[in-house]
Amino acid sequence: MEKYVYSFGGGKAEGRGDMKDVLGGKGAGLAEMTNAGLPVPPGFTIATSACRTYFENGNQLPKSIQEEVDSALSHLELLLGQRLGDSGSPLLVSVRSGAKFSMPGMMDTILNLGMNDTVVESVARKTQNQRFAYDSYRRFIQMFGGVVLDIPKADFEHIFDSQKKRRGFKFDTQLTPEDLNRIIAAYKKLVLKKKKFEFPQEPRRQLNMAVEAVFRSWYNPRAQTYRRLNRIPDDLGTAVNVQTMVFGNMGETSGTGVGFTRDPATGAKQFYGEFLMNAQGEDVVAGVRTPVPIAELEKFMPEVYQQLRDITGRLEEHYKDVQDFEFTIQEGKLYMLQTRNGKRTGNAAVRIAVDMVDEGLIDEAEALMRVEPEQLNQLLHPVLDESKPLKLIAKGLPASPGAAVGRVVFTADDAVKQGKGEPVILVRGETVPDDIHGMEVAAGILTSRGGMTSHAAVVTRGMGKCCVAGCSDAEVDEKRKILKIGPNVIKEGDWISLDGSTGRVMLGKAITKQPDPHSGPFGRFMKWADEYRQLGVRANADIPRDATVSREFGAEGIGLCRTEHMFFASDRLPHMQRMIMACKDTSDPKEAARYEKDRRAALAKLLPMQRRDFAGLFKAMDGLPVTIRTLDPPLHEFLPKREQLMVEIATLEAKGKKGAKLSQLKKMLEVVEGLHEFNPMLGLRGCRLGILYPEITEMQARAIFEAACDCKNKGIRARPEVMIPLVGEVKELAAQKEIVDRVASEVFAKKGIEVEYLVGTMIELPAAALSSGEIAREAQFFSFGTNDLTQTTFGLSRDDCGKIIAAYVKQKIWPADPFAVLDPKRVGRLLKIGTSEGRQARANLKVGICGEHGGDPASIEVCAEAGLNYVSCSPYRVPIARLAAGQAAIRRSGKDVAVSASATA
Amino acid sequence: MEKYVYSFGGGKAEGRGDMKDVLGGKGAGLAEMTNAGLPVPPGFTIATSACRTYFENGNQLPKSIQEEVDSALSHLELLLGQRLGDSGSPLLVSVRSGAKFSMPGMMDTILNLGMNDTVVESVARKTQNQRFAYDSYRRFIQMFGGVVLDIPKADFEHIFDSQKKRRGFKFDTQLTPEDLNRIIAAYKKLVLKKKKFEFPQEPRRQLNMAVEAVFRSWYNPRAQTYRRLNRIPDDLGTAVNVQTMVFGNMGETSGTGVGFTRDPATGAKQFYGEFLMNAQGEDVVAGVRTPVPIAELEKFMPEVYQQLRDITGRLEEHYKDVQDFEFTIQEGKLYMLQTRNGKRTGNAAVRIAVDMVDEGLIDEAEALMRVEPEQLNQLLHPVLDESKPLKLIAKGLPASPGAAVGRVVFTADDAVKQGKGEPVILVRGETVPDDIHGMEVAAGILTSRGGMTSHAAVVTRGMGKCCVAGCSDAEVDEKRKILKIGPNVIKEGDWISLDGSTGRVMLGKAITKQPDPHSGPFGRFMKWADEYRQLGVRANADIPRDATVSREFGAEGIGLCRTEHMFFASDRLPHMQRMIMACKDTSDPKEAARYEKDRRAALAKLLPMQRRDFAGLFKAMDGLPVTIRTLDPPLHEFLPKREQLMVEIATLEAKGKKGAKLSQLKKMLEVVEGLHEFNPMLGLRGCRLGILYPEITEMQARAIFEAACDCKNKGIRARPEVMIPLVGEVKELAAQKEIVDRVASEVFAKKGIEVEYLVGTMIELPAAALSSGEIAREAQFFSFGTNDLTQTTFGLSRDDCGKIIAAYVKQKIWPADPFAVLDPKRVGRLLKIGTSEGRQARANLKVGICGEHGGDPASIEVCAEAGLNYVSCSPYRVPIARLAAGQAAIRRSGKDVAVSASATA
Repeated sequence: MEKYVYSFGGGKAEGRGDMKDVLGGKGAGLAEMTNAGLPVPPGFTIATSACRTYFENGNQLPKSIQEEVDSALSHLELLLGQRLGDSGSPLLVSVRSGAKFSMPGMMDTILNLGMNDTVVESVARKTQNQRFAYDSYRRFIQMFGGVVLDIPKADFEHIFDSQKKRRGFKFDTQLTPEDLNRIIAAYKKLVLKKKKFEFPQEPRRQLNMAVEAVFRSWYNPRAQTYRRLNRIPDDLGTAVNVQTMVFGNMGETSGTGVGFTRDPATGAKQFYGEFLMNAQGEDVVAGVRTPVPIAELEKFMPEVYQQLRDITGRLEEHYKDVQDFEFTIQEGKLYMLQTRNGKRTGNAAVRIAVDMVDEGLIDEAEALMRVEPEQLNQLLHPVLDESKPLKLIAKGLPASPGAAVGRVVFTADDAVKQGKGEPVILVRGETVPDDIHGMEVAAGILTSRGGMTSHAAVVTRGMGKCCVAGCSDAEVDEKRKILKIGPNVIKEGDWISLDGSTGRVMLGKAITKQPDPHSGPFGRFMKWADEYRQLGVRANADIPRDATVSREFGAEGIGLCRTEHMFFASDRLPHMQRMIMACKDTSDPKEAARYEKDRRAALAKLLPMQRRDFAGLFKAMDGLPVTIRTLDPPLHEFLPKREQLMVEIATLEAKGKKGAKLSQLKKMLEVVEGLHEFNPMLGLRGCRLGILYPEITEMQARAIFEAACDCKNKGIRARPEVMIPLVGEVKELAAQKEIVDRVASEVFAKKGIEVEYLVGTMIELPAAALSSGEIAREAQFFSFGTNDLTQTTFGLSRDDCGKIIAAYVKQKIWPADPFAVLDPKRVGRLLKIGTSEGRQARANLKVGICGEHGGDPASIEVCAEAGLNYVSCSPYRVPIARLAAGQAAIRRSGKDVAVSASATA
Repeated sequence: MEKYVYSFGGGKAEGRGDMKDVLGGKGAGLAEMTNAGLPVPPGFTIATSACRTYFENGNQLPKSIQEEVDSALSHLELLLGQRLGDSGSPLLVSVRSGAKFSMPGMMDTILNLGMNDTVVESVARKTQNQRFAYDSYRRFIQMFGGVVLDIPKADFEHIFDSQKKRRGFKFDTQLTPEDLNRIIAAYKKLVLKKKKFEFPQEPRRQLNMAVEAVFRSWYNPRAQTYRRLNRIPDDLGTAVNVQTMVFGNMGETSGTGVGFTRDPATGAKQFYGEFLMNAQGEDVVAGVRTPVPIAELEKFMPEVYQQLRDITGRLEEHYKDVQDFEFTIQEGKLYMLQTRNGKRTGNAAVRIAVDMVDEGLIDEAEALMRVEPEQLNQLLHPVLDESKPLKLIAKGLPASPGAAVGRVVFTADDAVKQGKGEPVILVRGETVPDDIHGMEVAAGILTSRGGMTSHAAVVTRGMGKCCVAGCSDAEVDEKRKILKIGPNVIKEGDWISLDGSTGRVMLGKAITKQPDPHSGPFGRFMKWADEYRQLGVRANADIPRDATVSREFGAEGIGLCRTEHMFFASDRLPHMQRMIMACKDTSDPKEAARYEKDRRAALAKLLPMQRRDFAGLFKAMDGLPVTIRTLDPPLHEFLPKREQLMVEIATLEAKGKKGAKLSQLKKMLEVVEGLHEFNPMLGLRGCRLGILYPEITEMQARAIFEAACDCKNKGIRARPEVMIPLVGEVKELAAQKEIVDRVASEVFAKKGIEVEYLVGTMIELPAAALSSGEIAREAQFFSFGTNDLTQTTFGLSRDDCGKIIAAYVKQKIWPADPFAVLDPKRVGRLLKIGTSEGRQARANLKVGICGEHGGDPASIEVCAEAGLNYVSCSPYRVPIARLAAGQAAIRRSGKDVAVSASATA
């Protein structure tokens, strides 16, 4: 029979640390710590399978599981000599969620469960502390009321604040036992009014209700959003941890705190964290009171401090990773409540991984697996340009590094609304999980309350987004949408700048500059990635500046230069348009010859410009291959919009205007109509252009080879790879290749020198992948254009799919947006077919990918599996791709088995 | 060493009748007849390989081949005791093209080669017939000048006509030897003027030039067009037949003719053909003089007639197929110049095939292979409704059966221009190969000259298009664009009607009616097809009328009912539009609920109409399956066009108008903008609609099952198969299937009865084919939507590809339009993957095809190969599909080896 409940306590646990699937992360940590002899309050974990069974059973907990809970509870009561609801020796427990993957702030927690009208008196008696007892009961009702009974938190807070106000108190701690008793009475009245039943007094019933509420919270919208953003499967379920209460709020020798064994922001090997004396855990995490740095604990309680350092040091060594821990001190005695691998910034992740290799804790492969490739984003993010300082108006906590500049908004909804154009900075008293959609779009976050482990800090670090937290000088009036910092009054829409690495808040629009990722341990770390990876990494770059950046980031070539971007420049567009005006149909050979002549004349003007473009790229990539794609987009993209012309003409005609402008517009409309397509994505574009108008390919080839020869004369080694787009049939490629080869020999003959070059093709149509054996007979390389390949494989336009993808991901028809994460089942299958059949025809065929997926770690995994030679991505994603490629190689070698679990913690 | 030249003559030939690949059709026939001891003028055939070598060798005939020709020529001269250019006993030869596949009128022929200034005198002397000698020389210069030297035919005709006019002659035969000599002199002057060299006098040089001209003509535009239309590969090349001249114009005991062993129009077993006394072959074929029915020959020369009947009877028995033969009588002696399997109308093809089975000549499988499936079109074409007769104004030859009604045009270009809207009838004095593009688009052809074997007659029969030829009462003035028939003056744009089966020409717009294909041998023939075929044949039909027609044509079910067509009716469109107006995005749940309510209200109005639609189809198909596809097209197809609304609004605004109309237009534009897509083919359509708006699927399912239950109550057996379009992922299908199944049980419960039904899916995206194993777990059937599958596989929009396909087919990048002929390499591969992986997951999975390809014989072959269960096509193509399926089965069984060669002749 399946086991649903696992006890821990008294030095031994039924579960183990490697049972995260079953016990969740928190439950596994508690079991592990218990088994390691650490001071962990005893309790039991209800397994994730119980959560799944609960939902499968129509939101009912089966009797068999209830009985297992009863049995674990009895065991616990026996161990402690306490009983739930017992008036003599009452047991109080916390009820916490704990899924396999850590989901901070997303799930709900209930403390002090077991309290009722009788027990509270017993606790008061036993602790000789009425204030503590009533405050604990008050907190329990409030949490239970909010989490289990769905009564708005604000209703409880209103009662609490009224009592404080009535008494003229500033601090919670000023409230007397009588005040608290009055509050409890009012809370119970609120429950009766809202729920039409009395606040449940029976502790066993409280427990059941709490467990079910935790299960239900698995599907609350915040949790769903978090899972979607972090690609956590929806069907895992959460475990529930029921644990004996220890109290950090039992007076001045009690306290509670959270910490990290190393600095999660910088990775520095220093004990890191915060605590509050005479407080419960929620006070620290929720950021309501600003806590004290953990180093201060040494002054208050040196022995406890030393014990904590010892324990956490052992934990780090045990898990071989930074530990994020929670502890409570109850009347001088230390209890460990949780340990888990700590979330960290990208900077910290790299530094910690490298340090741990140096410390002999892990090897290089493990170090590489420790950093999520996306985290490197944070090392590559802009920093403030200090040479042009702005007015510093406040300093907060450096909660998440990077610089951010934007217009101020005060609600998550406003962030979404206004964040579509210019960047916004979301300013909040403190953030709550409901703000997550606004945090996603904001350039940065500023909060007036909360610490380094507050919701805002934790979430932004995960997002790699700049955050200044706990900026206590800031008064945030969310209703009136005003931020006051000293004499400065900042209104919605005003510009501010943040430095998340130092905590500075500045007025106005700062200038940002790129970081130097090559300082610090980043270089060593990336070198390891390069040693492991088998995939090459190139960049998609159209201009020399991007090429230079990508080379600095370690790109080994350009995998995609989109030549059409060059034609949109204002000095070129007129020639391009003249060329297009001559792309007309005619059956008259004389007329056709005239049109061709006109096209050639316009192309001749573009030739020297293209030659300069290519020379610049060759120079930037000296010695490295540069893949140049011939003209790809439909021609009408270079002309005014059809409906705009129609409206202009209709307007002029309605006004009775005649003359040159109207006839000019009409002439343009005629050309645009001639090129109009119902589905331009599936129309006259790609190599089809070069087949219908070979002189375009001819001009581009000429520019490429002339530039390459000129470079060679200057001692620069140009390695052009000419790439023909949208091929679906080998004869298309053969026809275009014939032009390229012919022009190459013409140029070489004229210049008297030769350069090496390749001619290859995009594989971006299912037709191409499905006849890749034939195509490889002509192609010297393949480059998978997975944007188009995804479009055609799914029959889904990237320009039109927003609504569809949103609905599909929400309805779980797709696990993710297939344009962000390469679909392994279908598009990935075409990659495999294309690669293997291409190589069968040409053993040394070079195969790459240059779609957006080339920079996505999960997609890179698919590319590695398909046996590609390289990926190509945007310059800033090159390091991410290098790391992802390294990890893919490690995973494929089977080396990751031991470390992957912690890497995903 | 490869042999390039094959001699024949003197009772034996080096080639054989089965060497069509090598000798071409004509050459193989000559070899076969020679070997059979028939009277064939001796000669030799230069093989098709020589043509290919000629082009590979840069349009030069290699010396080795020239030497082979010399040797064959010597052999011929020895056999005949004549020599090329010999003044005593000169050899004259014809030079004719002859490809593997017959291409009537497409290639060029030269007669009387060997003539020069000396030889002509020798011939005059030997034949005692100066007129004959000079006329032969005159003809030779004219043909050689036109075909080899590219001098316009009209230039020669002008000289010839001038001389006639000068002498006041009406007939060519009135010209005296002196006249002819003057013409010859003028011809030679013309050649010198045009070519800057003298007309070549050296016969061996004449021969070389002629052979090369024949080779070159393989790539003339007419030949290329014919090959493209008839899907004949471009790289076969043509053979050249050099044959001793025999003369049908040596006086009144000479003549020439062509014929068929059975009537090629009706298939009746009667000797059929035409001849002209004292004429050369070109006079018959070109339709310049109207020839005499072949039966008349019996009166002129009874012995020769009997010999001809004997020989051709033996040939038919030998080839086991109708023979199309050419003969010449020279001074009372019969010569056979050509025999080949005769082209015939669809009607004739079926009748002949059935008759030959009855005669024991062939078996049923061979009979089936004898009819091109497309030819059945001619049996299914409309005929004139005789109950409402029009004014008969003339009668011509019934050159190609069927009825045609259209507006008169006088040039091929006008036919193309004007034939896009209403049907046109192309009226010509006689048609020429250059008219082929006009003949393609015309509904029917009327010529004033030429016989049953004239260009117009042969080509239209091949096209299955109505033609009345040789209508000698008609005076066609192509320049002034006037057709005079007696007192009737018919201008461009006037309506006329033709009956190609009787030769009648009528004034005005006739009513046509459908033929009864079930009379005559058609029924027996189709029964054989049904016995052989393994593929089922269904029809695509949206309305009961089409369903009924398709059932009469033998459809075994409906393979595709497009429900959207039903929504365009004027009583439904307003409801559809109201539904669409409520397809809006909102994040407000209340608003969303209101929109859904609005959609449901509009759908409720459509429900009873859809129910009636389906009930009609079920009734028509009583007992047969009816596949109903849920809503497929993008919603904006049901709304006014976006740019039209923009222009209307701009016009009203420019005029300063305000008011209800403007704001209504703006509101509509807002909705249209919301639905606007850049690539609607890849947008919100297919099952995506049903996933975003499940109530649409719900309504359609309800209509289907309510109709089916109602039918059952009336004793009609409805067999609905609900088909979900544009699925790419099994979860899409699962979600829609859940709705269909739920609605079905609701309806069955309410009605108290049940009907059998299936739920399946279109496979029309590469994604679907590539995950068909998964999809088949939910789908009870697959239907390949090869229109969309071709679009997405090739990344090519059917709406935008005209220009591209034309260029690609012309440049030979594609062998054919992939929307007309299923691409076997890529789309066909997806068919195979989809079918085999689908069946692996569900062994009894029913698999069909419902794209346009379902009615195309070549595509049906691919479907048979992929192992599909059925094809579905438009009602009128059902018999074609049945035959094609029968042929596919015969080919796959290997039975066709013996007969395919003659079927393609």
